[in-house]
Amino acid sequence: MATNLRPDTALAARLFDALREKTFDGVGVTREAYGPGEEIAHALVRAEAEKLGLAIHNDFAGNMYMTLPGTDRTLPQIILGSHLDSVPQGGNYDGAAGVLCGMAVVAGMVQAGFQPRRDITVMAIRAEEGGAWFPGLPGSRMALGSYPAENLQALRKDSGLSLEHHMRALGYDPDAVKAGRAALGPHNVAAYLELHIEQGPVLDHEEIPLGIVTALPGNRRVRAGRIRGEYNHSGATPRAYRHDAAMALAEFAHKLDLYWGVLDAKGKPMVMTFCTINTNDQAGFGKVPGEIDFSLDVRSPHIETLDLFFAEIDRLAAEIGTARGVAIDVVGRGESAATPMDQAIQDGVRAAAEAMGVPYKIMPSGGGHDAASFAQAGIPAGMVFVRNQNGSHTPLEAMRMEDFTQATRVIAAWAARAGSA
Amino acid sequence: MATNLRPDTALAARLFDALREKTFDGVGVTREAYGPGEEIAHALVRAEAEKLGLAIHNDFAGNMYMTLPGTDRTLPQIILGSHLDSVPQGGNYDGAAGVLCGMAVVAGMVQAGFQPRRDITVMAIRAEEGGAWFPGLPGSRMALGSYPAENLQALRKDSGLSLEHHMRALGYDPDAVKAGRAALGPHNVAAYLELHIEQGPVLDHEEIPLGIVTALPGNRRVRAGRIRGEYNHSGATPRAYRHDAAMALAEFAHKLDLYWGVLDAKGKPMVMTFCTINTNDQAGFGKVPGEIDFSLDVRSPHIETLDLFFAEIDRLAAEIGTARGVAIDVVGRGESAATPMDQAIQDGVRAAAEAMGVPYKIMPSGGGHDAASFAQAGIPAGMVFVRNQNGSHTPLEAMRMEDFTQATRVIAAWAARAGSA
Repeated sequence: MATNLRPDTALAARLFDALREKTFDGVGVTREAYGPGEEIAHALVRAEAEKLGLAIHNDFAGNMYMTLPGTDRTLPQIILGSHLDSVPQGGNYDGAAGVLCGMAVVAGMVQAGFQPRRDITVMAIRAEEGGAWFPGLPGSRMALGSYPAENLQALRKDSGLSLEHHMRALGYDPDAVKAGRAALGPHNVAAYLELHIEQGPVLDHEEIPLGIVTALPGNRRVRAGRIRGEYNHSGATPRAYRHDAAMALAEFAHKLDLYWGVLDAKGKPMVMTFCTINTNDQAGFGKVPGEIDFSLDVRSPHIETLDLFFAEIDRLAAEIGTARGVAIDVVGRGESAATPMDQAIQDGVRAAAEAMGVPYKIMPSGGGHDAASFAQAGIPAGMVFVRNQNGSHTPLEAMRMEDFTQATRVIAAWAARAGSA
Repeated sequence: MATNLRPDTALAARLFDALREKTFDGVGVTREAYGPGEEIAHALVRAEAEKLGLAIHNDFAGNMYMTLPGTDRTLPQIILGSHLDSVPQGGNYDGAAGVLCGMAVVAGMVQAGFQPRRDITVMAIRAEEGGAWFPGLPGSRMALGSYPAENLQALRKDSGLSLEHHMRALGYDPDAVKAGRAALGPHNVAAYLELHIEQGPVLDHEEIPLGIVTALPGNRRVRAGRIRGEYNHSGATPRAYRHDAAMALAEFAHKLDLYWGVLDAKGKPMVMTFCTINTNDQAGFGKVPGEIDFSLDVRSPHIETLDLFFAEIDRLAAEIGTARGVAIDVVGRGESAATPMDQAIQDGVRAAAEAMGVPYKIMPSGGGHDAASFAQAGIPAGMVFVRNQNGSHTPLEAMRMEDFTQATRVIAAWAARAGSA
């Protein structure tokens, strides 16, 4: 029976090694979107898919689909996937683990002679590491027809060239994006399931190998926060005469941190980070700083929690601004919506984990992922986290193969069932 | 009688205008130490001194002495002075006001045919704006034989050339500094009195034209403070797992600010400034910042207050460091001692102000000045502040000539008395 299918995790292990070796940059791995590192990764995975006899094609955005055909190819397919690109000097697992999980699952099916009813497709998504290169999940959103065409003009930070330029250089078709075309949608995808390393320390700390994700967070970003006070002589300006931008920021940030503590104690899931804080070029030793810049990243799966927190941000900005005679500008706001994962997929993964005795934790995601693009396109989507040591976006990522194997077996069982439904 | 001598403040007003015109840089004035702007200022003042028939000479460091000879030239002299250099894009009054006050006083004496018993010398000091160019009051300290020879190798920030180089280029003699020579000392200076614009807003706010300075502050500087925590994914790292350097700094700085408020309410004179705060190049949107740098400037005329405050700095650094799992390194400490001004000079200036009905405030200085070099060399030294609008080290400095005139009349009365003693 399908639940006994053994995924070929040895194949995945070989691919992890090859990926690390071929995209090592001296510190970590670099698989830049639409660049040499991502190309190497796609070629390595494609070669294994060819050996397995999978049907392979790329869409206009360069996403790669490696399909085990089902008995009824007219039915919407099941996709197992993630991205193959990485941040510069990143780790080997962030992204690649989800693609290699899919490869291991499908290889196990091929080796067992199992043919599903629906197509089961491993998808290698392009350019997920938007923050490092281009904005906003370009690979999955282009496939789903939801990527804003103006983002094609965004420049990759290393090359200084546009996304459109890099796509054309590899033979892909940005004009399809401009025309609003979509390769995927609810008409041809029944479910999308993505395995990903957990990017935080929770599973490792709680000694649980698997996370079943309830929702991807929304975030509100303040990319260009600034406090403006007054530059003054640091020796000659008594306390009562100051409009010190740095002390206003210290009070603002610390009080927000305390408020976060209150919400955290009430069990409201959110995170808040002042990612950057900088006095500017006019500041210097012997001066009261008259200006300070900051960026602020607030995330929560609950929009009400974001609303609550931003109400406090605005209240404190006004209160501290008035008390200190400074202007606290919380500007450059951007927002992405929180995205719940499909309940039936969560239930199915959970049933498979329980059947195999694999411990799991039901948890929200802290980071955003391609699964959000699918869910927002109306496709049932789910995510499974694998315990990982030392965070992500660092060469120190240290997922254990035994955890990956347990997670992949759970996903294989889910996929066999979903592919047969 | 001497106290009726009218200083020639019209001469001073003409010189202020000439200085502004000849050293205007398009924004403010620039009279860089041992550079063209300072040279222009010295030449303008020297020309007026020549017209007055004063005895003029420069010492080995380029400080200029313009002397009205006394009847007994063997007696230690009275010096009225300040510096003629400015910060880049600075204001016209910071420094120059003290020299032009001396010129107005001596011109008044010449015009009245008044000859003091002791020499009365107007001193134009070099390179006081150390922070902008070279460290530590080089002009006055070279004259007094207390400038460390190694500082001759410090580089001026605009030219990239050393203090020694710039001194030689103008024909002065850095070898005298290396040999430990002194042009001035208690043997030839009976008293030094310096008029300076107040660099803070206190006199203006309290509507008092004159400040009589009790002491110059000591400061403790932390030039290379750093908090080290851990970089993490800002979305995926829950509150309990963070070692956020920026939040540690916010708590540290805000609690120090509150503690300063407590000391301030008790009337302990001090100021505290986080002059610069910067996350570093590794920080970026989407990361918990793992490191943040800061500089901290603490000043007080009372060493006990500095001790008290630094005990709290060390206590909070340890407490917050432990609670948050970060290292708060308060390193790069430097210290300069507080310097009291001579009591007899304070009393004499006060008596003159009272005799003339000029309102005054007894106050400590917030900034450091050349008067500290004299006091530390064992010479009775004093300072008079003139009310000034809009701070110093900015083109916006706005001393009123009527305030300068009142202060200069008080100093003329004091100088006539001191020169006759």
